[in-house]
Amino acid sequence: MTDFHIGRLTVIGVGLIGGSLALALRDAGVVDDIVGAGRSIENLETALELEIVDRYCLDPVEAVQGADLVFLSTPVQTFGTLAGQLLPAMKPGSILTDGGSVKGDVIRQIEPLLPPGIAFVPGHPIAGTENSGATAAFSSLYRDKRCILTPTPSTPAAALETVRRMWQVAGSEVVVMGVEKHDRILAAISHLPHMIAYTLVNAVGSYDRFEENILEYSAGGFRDFTRIASSDPTMWRDIALTNREALLEMMERYESFLAELKEDIRSGEGQKLYDFFLKSKLLRDAIL
Amino acid sequence: MTDFHIGRLTVIGVGLIGGSLALALRDAGVVDDIVGAGRSIENLETALELEIVDRYCLDPVEAVQGADLVFLSTPVQTFGTLAGQLLPAMKPGSILTDGGSVKGDVIRQIEPLLPPGIAFVPGHPIAGTENSGATAAFSSLYRDKRCILTPTPSTPAAALETVRRMWQVAGSEVVVMGVEKHDRILAAISHLPHMIAYTLVNAVGSYDRFEENILEYSAGGFRDFTRIASSDPTMWRDIALTNREALLEMMERYESFLAELKEDIRSGEGQKLYDFFLKSKLLRDAIL
Ligand SMILES: NC(=O)c1ccc[n+]([C@@H]2O[C@H](COP(=O)([O-])OP(=O)(O)OC[C@H]3O[C@@H](n4cnc5c(N)ncnc54)[C@H](OP(=O)(O)O)[C@@H]3O)[C@@H](O)[C@H]2O)c1
Ligand SMILES: NC(=O)c1ccc[n+]([C@@H]2O[C@H](COP(=O)([O-])OP(=O)(O)OC[C@H]3O[C@@H](n4cnc5c(N)ncnc54)[C@H](OP(=O)(O)O)[C@@H]3O)[C@@H](O)[C@H]2O)c1
Repeated sequence: MTDFHIGRLTVIGVGLIGGSLALALRDAGVVDDIVGAGRSIENLETALELEIVDRYCLDPVEAVQGADLVFLSTPVQTFGTLAGQLLPAMKPGSILTDGGSVKGDVIRQIEPLLPPGIAFVPGHPIAGTENSGATAAFSSLYRDKRCILTPTPSTPAAALETVRRMWQVAGSEVVVMGVEKHDRILAAISHLPHMIAYTLVNAVGSYDRFEENILEYSAGGFRDFTRIASSDPTMWRDIALTNREALLEMMERYESFLAELKEDIRSGEGQKLYDFFLKSKLLRDAIL
Repeated sequence: MTDFHIGRLTVIGVGLIGGSLALALRDAGVVDDIVGAGRSIENLETALELEIVDRYCLDPVEAVQGADLVFLSTPVQTFGTLAGQLLPAMKPGSILTDGGSVKGDVIRQIEPLLPPGIAFVPGHPIAGTENSGATAAFSSLYRDKRCILTPTPSTPAAALETVRRMWQVAGSEVVVMGVEKHDRILAAISHLPHMIAYTLVNAVGSYDRFEENILEYSAGGFRDFTRIASSDPTMWRDIALTNREALLEMMERYESFLAELKEDIRSGEGQKLYDFFLKSKLLRDAIL
């Protein structure tokens, strides 16, 4: 692992996820040259000032010239268009990988566009905050976190190994799994909770019976609980749409549990309520 | 406020809420003598060792002898039985107050039992953690938090003033409001989020399609989001049952927002999803 090395790394979308990977690899001293690409000059200038990238290009085609590894970390619905531009300009033997929160849809967007000689390794670091942009990036984001890689039948073993070692250098524990499993697990532990938090804040924040904003009464519990509702709307729109099938399955599972709880409250089933809350508490305490 | 003073304070249920109030008043030097009562000797012994109480009695009738102020802080469904025992033993001119999370039901349990000469001031500190028992208590719990008091038409103004000053001494900002408003606001910002967290952990923790505990994959976001699912099952059974009407109203409001979100995901309404997530983000950011 000590001999791991990347010549040129290009990060497309130098925000929380892409910026933090660049910083972690730079701090580890394993990369010669980091090029950034993105949408706004402002964010790329910030990335340069914060020494996240050595230089940037607004044009992604120019940004990938000579890169050994290209990391895609824009919102997932942009991946298809960006890959269509980038892939023909990548050098033979180089690797495209990504950090998108959804994997099935990303693979469906990118795989058909892959030219021979370019490897694609789909990945997803299980780490994040509710903040966005280059200013949100920090080099320890991935330390002691998991990173899931979901290779397809056409992913070359050597490229998978390179990307695995890259994430290990960034501090993560790498887990390889099938794409469907990834998308369902993430729907359950991440995408569903975000939908719930957004919905709760909306439902409570728009309750106007008392002609004052009742969110003003919220204490620490509510604030912790709803922190993820501050996440980026574009990113979450893209996740909701691209992991639609798994997310809808989980939302329906959750709704049926909630409906049962509601019936138990309505009919005053004290023992059932106690058992349900206790079961949740035991499950939750176990992951502390 | 500096001349505020309580001779003897009796705390029934020396857990997080009652123990923290005792510690705050003791630290402020405004109470002569603190008596604890409760269910288990173990917890009361702990309260004595931690100097939360000066002495304890297992019998609540004995515990309230000579008390100027009695604070009820057991689970709310125990209030009726306890009040039935305590009230006849309280000295004339003394005050009963409580910290129960629900107010309408508590008033319905206690008011009919009030003897002449004893004042009842219903209260609810908007502060807490997911931990329970005397060991969870700490004197700064109420600092810079709100405490809601919901006097009834029969609450004497002087008693309301005493309880208001008590909470101010403990560090809280006191808000007086009607009982129905309290119960609906709390259903929205506290009781509903707890039902959601318990349900989410149950629905995800029992998903067994991959024959492994998928909660193992949860990262920081899920852990923060579900922390409140570690709360005490007895307390939450009691809250769910005693604030049933307001809670069911809020659960149904929330369910209808969630159903609409699900339809927008299913039919791929990208703009509507973006607008919904953005609205939540703005509401949430405003309470940071
Ligand atoms: N946040 C998390 O918790 C998390 C966790 C794991 C994976 N992910 C995934 O990581 C990816 C990035 O998320 P993030 O949190 O890092 O978001 P972010 O902080 O907003 O960064 C995304 C970056 O992409 C740029 N961008 C947006 N649209 C673009 C386009 N059409 N062309 C070029 N650049 C574009 C943005 O540029 P501007 O600044 O100029 O707008 C921004 O700098 C997403 O696919 C997300 O699903 C996120
Ligand atoms: N936790 C919160 O976030 C919060 C916030 C605001 C208000 N409240 C309200 O405050 C009250 C207490 O909550 P808490 O969090 O302090 O709970 P807690 O830490 O579990 O304390 C409750 C105490 O009451 C005792 N108790 C339970 N049943 C009893 C009975 N039948 N007779 C006598 N004592 C009994 C328990 O004794 P043992 O230890 O011996 O079992 C325990 O010490 C509840 O009404 C709750 O609704 C809670």
